[in-house]
Amino acid sequence: MKYLEDMILEHGEVVGEDILKVDSFLNHRMDWQVYNEIAQEFYRLFSDSGVNMLLTIEASGIGIAAVTAQHFKVPAVFAKKAKTSNIGDDLYRAMVHSFTHGSTSDIVVSKKYISAGDRVLIIDDFLANGQAALGLVSIVEQAGAELVGCGIVIEKGFQEGGKKLRDMGIRVESLAIIKSMSEGKIVFA
Amino acid sequence: MKYLEDMILEHGEVVGEDILKVDSFLNHRMDWQVYNEIAQEFYRLFSDSGVNMLLTIEASGIGIAAVTAQHFKVPAVFAKKAKTSNIGDDLYRAMVHSFTHGSTSDIVVSKKYISAGDRVLIIDDFLANGQAALGLVSIVEQAGAELVGCGIVIEKGFQEGGKKLRDMGIRVESLAIIKSMSEGKIVFA
Repeated sequence: MKYLEDMILEHGEVVGEDILKVDSFLNHRMDWQVYNEIAQEFYRLFSDSGVNMLLTIEASGIGIAAVTAQHFKVPAVFAKKAKTSNIGDDLYRAMVHSFTHGSTSDIVVSKKYISAGDRVLIIDDFLANGQAALGLVSIVEQAGAELVGCGIVIEKGFQEGGKKLRDMGIRVESLAIIKSMSEGKIVFA
Repeated sequence: MKYLEDMILEHGEVVGEDILKVDSFLNHRMDWQVYNEIAQEFYRLFSDSGVNMLLTIEASGIGIAAVTAQHFKVPAVFAKKAKTSNIGDDLYRAMVHSFTHGSTSDIVVSKKYISAGDRVLIIDDFLANGQAALGLVSIVEQAGAELVGCGIVIEKGFQEGGKKLRDMGIRVESLAIIKSMSEGKIVFA
């Protein structure tokens, strides 16, 4: 998606070899136009797939999923990190390891909000090692729901998350795929 | 806002004397129609106020602010809880105590995304003790920005947050104000 690639080139900041900061428009300051473009594109890609709910994970995925839900006219559920939860015991759980924060956390989704028969589109801001996405995939499987695919804003193509998911037969649509960021230079796939 | 009050009566769940769970449409499963109605109403209330940015706090405020931003056509910035931050050192900080979780955390906003001259509308899902809102107000003050008001989805009118903010001269617009929840019965103001 050219529009997004241009935003990344203009406003993204590479830190070290593998951190891309897009705080100015994606995950601290949410630029309404960027969000609108992203949501429209996810809708274009998946509107024929019978999606009846979106699934994401707190925190950065929430805004993107909420705006995308306005285009699909379906609900968006966000998985919560377990410690914050006052949402009952009837939960699907998955373990998610964050390489960025060096910690492992339980994510949970109430069994009330995802069921067999649901056609789920997973939405997230970044796909790198794939840990968060795999946790969400596990929750979809536990619920016996149908996974339509993953809509990712930025995929770090040089990390293994995208390959893992595609090797599982999952449709992954990443709006920008970064092939490399060596020496601060962003190259798209 | 009658629509929201009806949703709360139909789908809200009172736990004990002072916890209202609205997970099914507001802060775990985000109902796209409810979000659209909320965003429209915030826009109606504040569209004449020259708002040029929204400010909220992770996690539950993010979705509401992101959708509301689509109506205002302005960016929405969300304050981050400090431990998760890889967003640099140039930060406004405030302490926020959560009575729900029994913990105090630092919230931060990058100085890049709020400045003197900004006209800020604070958005949040709940107003109870007012700790989160007061933290955000402090950040607006530190930045020397203008606070236009607070748009709150659900105010617990029997707790002191609303009074505190209004006593400071802040315009607080709460889409539903709960007067009491004794014995599981929700009464609106």
